Amino acid sequence: MGIKWTSLSSAITLVPLGGLGEIGRNMLAISCQEDIVVVDSGLMFPEQEMLGVDLVIPDISWLLERVERVRGIVLTHGHEDHIGALPYILPRLDVPVYGTALTLGLLRNKLRDHGLIESTELHTVQPGDVKSFGCFEVEWVHTTHSIPDACALAIRTPVGLIVHSGDFKVDTTPVQGEPPDLARLARLGDEGVLLLLSDSTNAEHDGTTPSERSVGDGLSPLFAGAGGRILMATFASNISRLQQAVNAAQACERKCFIVGRSMLKNVRVAEELGFLHAPAAMFVSPKEHESVPDAELAILCTGAQGEPLSALTRIAAGEHPMVKLHAGDTVIISANPIPGNEEAVHRTINNLYRHGARVFNSSRHRVHASGHASREELKLLLTLTRPKYFIPVHGEYRHLAVHAQLARSVGIPAENVLAVDNGVVVEVDASGVRRTDTRAPAGYVYVDGLSIEEADDVVFRDRRQLAQDGVVIVILTVERSTGAVVGGPELVSRGFLEDDTAHLFDEAGEHVLEVQSGFAPDADWTVRQAAIHEALSRFLYRRTKRRPLILPVVTEI
Amino acid sequence: MGIKWTSLSSAITLVPLGGLGEIGRNMLAISCQEDIVVVDSGLMFPEQEMLGVDLVIPDISWLLERVERVRGIVLTHGHEDHIGALPYILPRLDVPVYGTALTLGLLRNKLRDHGLIESTELHTVQPGDVKSFGCFEVEWVHTTHSIPDACALAIRTPVGLIVHSGDFKVDTTPVQGEPPDLARLARLGDEGVLLLLSDSTNAEHDGTTPSERSVGDGLSPLFAGAGGRILMATFASNISRLQQAVNAAQACERKCFIVGRSMLKNVRVAEELGFLHAPAAMFVSPKEHESVPDAELAILCTGAQGEPLSALTRIAAGEHPMVKLHAGDTVIISANPIPGNEEAVHRTINNLYRHGARVFNSSRHRVHASGHASREELKLLLTLTRPKYFIPVHGEYRHLAVHAQLARSVGIPAENVLAVDNGVVVEVDASGVRRTDTRAPAGYVYVDGLSIEEADDVVFRDRRQLAQDGVVIVILTVERSTGAVVGGPELVSRGFLEDDTAHLFDEAGEHVLEVQSGFAPDADWTVRQAAIHEALSRFLYRRTKRRPLILPVVTEI
Repeated sequence: MGIKWTSLSSAITLVPLGGLGEIGRNMLAISCQEDIVVVDSGLMFPEQEMLGVDLVIPDISWLLERVERVRGIVLTHGHEDHIGALPYILPRLDVPVYGTALTLGLLRNKLRDHGLIESTELHTVQPGDVKSFGCFEVEWVHTTHSIPDACALAIRTPVGLIVHSGDFKVDTTPVQGEPPDLARLARLGDEGVLLLLSDSTNAEHDGTTPSERSVGDGLSPLFAGAGGRILMATFASNISRLQQAVNAAQACERKCFIVGRSMLKNVRVAEELGFLHAPAAMFVSPKEHESVPDAELAILCTGAQGEPLSALTRIAAGEHPMVKLHAGDTVIISANPIPGNEEAVHRTINNLYRHGARVFNSSRHRVHASGHASREELKLLLTLTRPKYFIPVHGEYRHLAVHAQLARSVGIPAENVLAVDNGVVVEVDASGVRRTDTRAPAGYVYVDGLSIEEADDVVFRDRRQLAQDGVVIVILTVERSTGAVVGGPELVSRGFLEDDTAHLFDEAGEHVLEVQSGFAPDADWTVRQAAIHEALSRFLYRRTKRRPLILPVVTEI
Repeated sequence: MGIKWTSLSSAITLVPLGGLGEIGRNMLAISCQEDIVVVDSGLMFPEQEMLGVDLVIPDISWLLERVERVRGIVLTHGHEDHIGALPYILPRLDVPVYGTALTLGLLRNKLRDHGLIESTELHTVQPGDVKSFGCFEVEWVHTTHSIPDACALAIRTPVGLIVHSGDFKVDTTPVQGEPPDLARLARLGDEGVLLLLSDSTNAEHDGTTPSERSVGDGLSPLFAGAGGRILMATFASNISRLQQAVNAAQACERKCFIVGRSMLKNVRVAEELGFLHAPAAMFVSPKEHESVPDAELAILCTGAQGEPLSALTRIAAGEHPMVKLHAGDTVIISANPIPGNEEAVHRTINNLYRHGARVFNSSRHRVHASGHASREELKLLLTLTRPKYFIPVHGEYRHLAVHAQLARSVGIPAENVLAVDNGVVVEVDASGVRRTDTRAPAGYVYVDGLSIEEADDVVFRDRRQLAQDGVVIVILTVERSTGAVVGGPELVSRGFLEDDTAHLFDEAGEHVLEVQSGFAPDADWTVRQAAIHEALSRFLYRRTKRRPLILPVVTEI
């Protein structure tokens, strides 16, 4: 954290704190002169090897070191990977937050859960609004995504105009609201865009992404043709998808039962704000749903990613307290698995089939459309805005690299295009876009149980070793006064070997004693523990080809 | 294992020991009268939650209980998921093994590594050959798959004819050898097929699977157009794919450097047996490859699944001893990620891009073709063989369920189609195909380190808990003679909390002492340990919302 900040009046500094070279956890700090504005503040779900972690959020220590210069956080839309870190970050970075009505509506639900609703300064904006943040002026520009009320940002700086796409696709027939404001983006292009930052999620997808409305065309016949109940799983924040499920249910006179607190709260907020429309009698309570005939019921729930504790996963496993599968139920999984979740999603689908359900999922049926622009749409944004410089954002490094190639293919000179990882501090001015030698801390910050932890790999290394081969504990009791071994060594293990370990551990114990006998009684116990560790580790590997975590404990009496 | 066997002269009994409702580990026992024949004996790679396991093989205890009746193991082709368990199974089930030349060639490599080559009775067959196994006659029928010398099986039994598809696709332009022997399959249909067992891997894929030759059409321009080196990753056993890489390299006068012992051995066997053709001067040694100019070199290696220790993963991470990436290298990943491996494959691709490589993988480029039949080919096999009964094999349960639907759609009566899980004992005779109430042990057997373990979930449950929240050990020293606590409680943890735990553990220790003080000195230590466990578990959860594995240890002096 020894980075010292020097004000650079002649350049914009971009500090990606998340969202580059990975999925989720979007957060970008933009600094110019004495002011900093932050775009989004999202969370990511842990990768496979982040054992035992609940959530991952950006490291904000770079911002905390210059907190007096941070003018505000501006939000593009209300998805978890853009707003989900705020409840963990706002207590340490108390700055005003700006976003559209639905975005802040979803955020308020979270802040209320964390007791932060009173202490947070929230400003609702509309597309077209311009807000000042010191030397920055930020304009929200209406776009389309898989959630309504999503925006791109036009960020005016003393050095030039930055356009940030947010998450978008060019959906000319959105389910809710207007098509994207391409005309405004074109006028920004006329004005001259210094730098474009654009969504790379689907940079590997040729063509264009289907309209969100196409999902409705896929859902309608399934809802209408099903003999039994409909169960549809999607993200709790996917308001447009929920609207289409409501529409399809309404068309065939089904009631909707919403399972899960988060989805219910989001639906209520979206209804209040006019982003979701449904007749009042449409929704039934947990109690009421039991008396609705199967053919007249649609159940909406979470679990489209096979998350262990989600409604659909528990329903598929026969472990949900309210919803049991009936043979002949139709299950619709209206989402693509996020990379890493495929196995869990497939396990859920296997279980659904085992219960005799019919299953429709994105791989074969038109029950999902991505919310992100494909290559032709990305090229459209590039040609509308005609930026001088281009930085791909929002995606794994492979997406950024492919998006960078695409930008070059539409005529942006190679040296004006830069794909970077989190923490790489980038400078932009009239003379170029360049990586600096400065690195901002941008590691993972883990939310685990009740605590928020800085990135420290020791715990994960230990957990990984524990997960691989378990733990072997060796306990020696020594007399404090003399240093003599009076008890043990006793060996205990968990997660190590299933077979009887008695004989192996007897031998290991003798080995430990032998190692100990080489030391003088007053030898330092740290050294003696290290010797035990090494000897035992070698012995066990030779005998079992496993490397359990070895924990020598010396208790004194 | 209390199942007792009753000979049923009037029916065939099928016992799936692996390969149903999961991926890999294919093994099917077929029993009739006094004879048992076993089809394939494969391994599977562990799923995410099988922590620390190297490989998973079928449980053969059902076979071991009736070993004197097992007449042999018949192999369909030489992929790992069909032959890979043999080195672990043959030492306990010493029966003759039958397979085609390439299949046994690849198997011999494995048996040699395990010191089993002398003790195993191997019989090479050719397509068209018929072998007797007691009351069974097995005929090998030539098919096409992503490995040459693959066969379906026609199994004649006293009850009727069974056709087992093996792994197949209908490839009318294979890279090596003849198109599949559809005429023979049709004649078997004329004769009357009682039961068809068919590959379900791609039962969700519409249309037909591209010919293996189409991959060559995709590879050629990449090989020819690349300025730097070509690195191509695929499975070590994918002989047809390696042949096409060799062809593409030859066409643009590149030498081939094969990285990795398993791939090298497979190439040698395939060459010896005439299943792979390459000029002798084509291949260069590790030493020689250093002096070949980048534009004249193709490197073939494993790692297409992002396996942690594989060549490509290590090359991408910059950790391979022989191969370092050069900017401008072209990397081709010629395989689809197996479900569960996506994250690892993407991490590898991200690293390759970070090193400035161009990357071509299956999702966007024609560098891979599946080896498994799509829906139109599955329908073709069903209509050629016209079976009375149908059981889908080889796939997760969702694949089996969809394949069962497909079979019904081509006219097989619903009651004649049966999708089952491993271990479900099925009976077939002229009057029907049915699940019996008998279950054969068909759980996972884990190869972990040096040992082979029966399925026992305790170790995995422990490892999972260790992986989630680590371990907390609490040690009490008591005097044997009096039962008095003379030392501790001492608390030690690993993988638990990063923050300073001193204060928390002090308090926890007091808690433990308090619990102990409620017991008489002569109270049973098992009961006292259980009380410590419970109290500590509740205390730690309340304070940290985590559930580490808690291990109370009492040492006596």
